[in-house]
Amino acid sequence: MTRTGEGRTREPLIGVLGGMGPEATLDFYRYILSLTPAAVDQDHIAVLIYSNPKIPDRTQAIISGGESPLPYLIEGARLLEEDGAGIIAMPCNAAHYYLEDMRREVRIPILDMVEETCAALRRRLPEVRTAGLLATIGTLKGRVYDEALEKVGVAAAIPDEAVCWMVQDAIDQVKAGKYGPSTRETFEYAGRRLLDAGAQAVILACTEIPLSFDENAVDYPTLNPARILAQAAVDWALGKKGRLP
Amino acid sequence: MTRTGEGRTREPLIGVLGGMGPEATLDFYRYILSLTPAAVDQDHIAVLIYSNPKIPDRTQAIISGGESPLPYLIEGARLLEEDGAGIIAMPCNAAHYYLEDMRREVRIPILDMVEETCAALRRRLPEVRTAGLLATIGTLKGRVYDEALEKVGVAAAIPDEAVCWMVQDAIDQVKAGKYGPSTRETFEYAGRRLLDAGAQAVILACTEIPLSFDENAVDYPTLNPARILAQAAVDWALGKKGRLP
Repeated sequence: MTRTGEGRTREPLIGVLGGMGPEATLDFYRYILSLTPAAVDQDHIAVLIYSNPKIPDRTQAIISGGESPLPYLIEGARLLEEDGAGIIAMPCNAAHYYLEDMRREVRIPILDMVEETCAALRRRLPEVRTAGLLATIGTLKGRVYDEALEKVGVAAAIPDEAVCWMVQDAIDQVKAGKYGPSTRETFEYAGRRLLDAGAQAVILACTEIPLSFDENAVDYPTLNPARILAQAAVDWALGKKGRLP
Repeated sequence: MTRTGEGRTREPLIGVLGGMGPEATLDFYRYILSLTPAAVDQDHIAVLIYSNPKIPDRTQAIISGGESPLPYLIEGARLLEEDGAGIIAMPCNAAHYYLEDMRREVRIPILDMVEETCAALRRRLPEVRTAGLLATIGTLKGRVYDEALEKVGVAAAIPDEAVCWMVQDAIDQVKAGKYGPSTRETFEYAGRRLLDAGAQAVILACTEIPLSFDENAVDYPTLNPARILAQAAVDWALGKKGRLP
């Protein structure tokens, strides 16, 4: 920790820039806890979660000139840095469109969920040449994954325009708390369509999707960037700093 | 918010002093989200959660002179205040032993989960004269609930010493992630014993208990202080500031 004071531990503090959306942030915190080996409270990792759901919509900003979330993202990252976080995790795929601009504004590392996911894809499924993306329109149009996938030798496949909007609509329903069989079926169907179109694996590239998707219930390989990011954050805190930027 | 800057909203910010334990903090954040009416991300409330599981064990400090958590609690409360929280919620019953000492150290209000619970008990179950407490040994020996219950005309009932330790052991198992039918049965059994001893309602006065207790599966009335505290925090953020200290 960069700041210590009376009563503050010198333990690693994970900063979480969340609220995009809040349920996905809840899910991310759950991954952190479940990935941490702990027998008593004190074995767990200190985490500071700034859940700011007022950050303007990423997709609107990327595709149709809505208010930019960047100033909010920078402010949130600075808050976490000032409070002593040693690293920042941002469980929102579309927000990674702004990652490089954010990194210039803080001194502590911001983990790259996209890069971590592509590395995990290469490691776990080395035979994959084309990966399908289930994501918001913002993540797709902003080409958030394309370059990182290319770097590991993988082509990105995206659904047909109509299916993309079905997925976006289901994501919006998850954000509204209206998820269940219908949203799950939409995500599973869209994943299946990606397989039909040549993808050999599917990336759940919006942190709301795992809230309404059972990775064990589909017959194709999937990657969950939120859980991969949580693992990277936990690894950092536990001292396995292999892949830090 | 007391501090505003570029990109920061002027929206109410709930500060959560958590990590005692982390799973209970996760649960508390879930209550906040589920109690907030929201159709899109931006309808949700901004929350800053400082989950510091390194805070020394409250029960050990209260009953056997272990390291005091107070300096850590004050440091956490100050961090939340400095970051612009308008109020602090602390989802740990035993930590309320230190509430008055904490309140002297920050200018923003710290909600009183114990007082909120007693008020809810009076409001929802006005006929109750004796309430049973399922809690850690620290909360019981520290008499965290006794005075607040007395103020609303209710006597506190606690289980026999042996049952108290069974409950403490089950709480420790929940903290270790080892919960299931066995811990649930322990809590339900202890609640039933309290009813047999004359209590007319049971307070789940440790935030780990609701993680392994189905309030709908028992035939006696229960109160969940964590959810009551979350409701008070949401009410504050939505402008219903009726019961603020």
